[in-house]
Amino acid sequence: MAKARVAFSSKEEKYRRVPKMSEIKYPEDVAYLHFCSNNTIEGTQFQEFPETGKVPLVADMSSDMASRRLDFKNFSLIYAGAQKNLGPAGVTLIVIRNDFLAKAKQGLPTMFTYKTFTDSKSLYNTPPVFGVYIMKLVLEWVKSKGGLAGVEKINASKKDLLYSAIDTAADFYKGSAEKASRSWMNVTMRLPTEALEDKFVADAKKEGLLGLKGHRSVGGIRFSIYNAVSLEDIQKTVDFMARFPQVCLKSKMHNKPK
Amino acid sequence: MAKARVAFSSKEEKYRRVPKMSEIKYPEDVAYLHFCSNNTIEGTQFQEFPETGKVPLVADMSSDMASRRLDFKNFSLIYAGAQKNLGPAGVTLIVIRNDFLAKAKQGLPTMFTYKTFTDSKSLYNTPPVFGVYIMKLVLEWVKSKGGLAGVEKINASKKDLLYSAIDTAADFYKGSAEKASRSWMNVTMRLPTEALEDKFVADAKKEGLLGLKGHRSVGGIRFSIYNAVSLEDIQKTVDFMARFPQVCLKSKMHNKPK
Repeated sequence: MAKARVAFSSKEEKYRRVPKMSEIKYPEDVAYLHFCSNNTIEGTQFQEFPETGKVPLVADMSSDMASRRLDFKNFSLIYAGAQKNLGPAGVTLIVIRNDFLAKAKQGLPTMFTYKTFTDSKSLYNTPPVFGVYIMKLVLEWVKSKGGLAGVEKINASKKDLLYSAIDTAADFYKGSAEKASRSWMNVTMRLPTEALEDKFVADAKKEGLLGLKGHRSVGGIRFSIYNAVSLEDIQKTVDFMARFPQVCLKSKMHNKPK
Repeated sequence: MAKARVAFSSKEEKYRRVPKMSEIKYPEDVAYLHFCSNNTIEGTQFQEFPETGKVPLVADMSSDMASRRLDFKNFSLIYAGAQKNLGPAGVTLIVIRNDFLAKAKQGLPTMFTYKTFTDSKSLYNTPPVFGVYIMKLVLEWVKSKGGLAGVEKINASKKDLLYSAIDTAADFYKGSAEKASRSWMNVTMRLPTEALEDKFVADAKKEGLLGLKGHRSVGGIRFSIYNAVSLEDIQKTVDFMARFPQVCLKSKMHNKPK
């Protein structure tokens, strides 16, 4: 059984930030350094990546793969469930360096060894063909948007609009994540009271803005703005956000609870 | 590492039959007896199931699950990839007895232990939701056909039509599997020559009958007649089969190769 060592945790700060690169501490004899590039629950994201020298870098990019340009050369292994930016749940994208593949432990169960899949060109077993086909269509769509550079530009505009809507009404909306750690994919915030958060979700729903309730483990509001969400969708959202505090003021809900 | 013992094999007979129940031999101290209920390549199928007494019975039913009625009480574990009769590839159906589940080896990797999935109501990880949804629609369709009893009746008619078409032209078509082992799902046959088999596949294609080429490892002709294939489709197929030998006689292809 392998032993894991924690190179950084912001648990004490309720996970509201990712580390500065200088804060990451790990022994030099580790097999690899693992991190998750985007935290969908708290709404944090690595904007730069650890430089690990000879230590292989491994990343779970399930929730921000294909949202921005990426220098694959820095990674030994990237894995990403498709269900955010790539296609339907049930497909997983794996990018692995040959030299890292060669170092894999022998004797693992067949389906737990990436070599099984590289040796068979990902056709060891019947693949989830529908999901793979949809992923092809999604990647063609990404291409039509100008590739990752084009998608990145749209995503930058989307998150800028949302965070700006939060920060310009900072007495009402409070971003959950530390500014330097803010996610481009999951924008999280709190309102003055939970009652107001419930009203926010309900009123937004009436305008066709769905799924804004934060993850059940943390509450609050969460905008999950994966590639499929358009700039127009975000514009509609920030228009609603600009109106909402006024609506609450009029209905006298904007008082702090006693 | 567990050791497998072969309880029966028809390898010497090119897998053209499944065992008679009396032929199955295995030691009494085995953890379970495993068999695959339908062989898609050779076109054989178990029409009755081993009675194993206290030895748990485990079956891979990937290619005939939901094609006929089944007494689940006889099995400790049934597993079936969805992609034949249930839905798109990427979903797997598992039916497991609680007492068999309790006997599972401890310390296996999380994703290799059925307990992970029973404990979490199959929601340990993000499930392949599209496939699960399609499976729901397929099961509703099965219900609309009169449930498994209704589907079984249709499937019986389908295979009767096809095997009858083979046997009534026995000088031309030769069923690959032994009669008692014939599959309801994959009907396999040979023609006098491979050239005729190629012509059969090509001519059938012109009439909209697709995918009749046998598995690349065995050749010949294979009709895969899963639930989605209708009785009308089969009627069209046997009409073509009745005409085909005459067409070949006229074109003088029906001579044995020199």
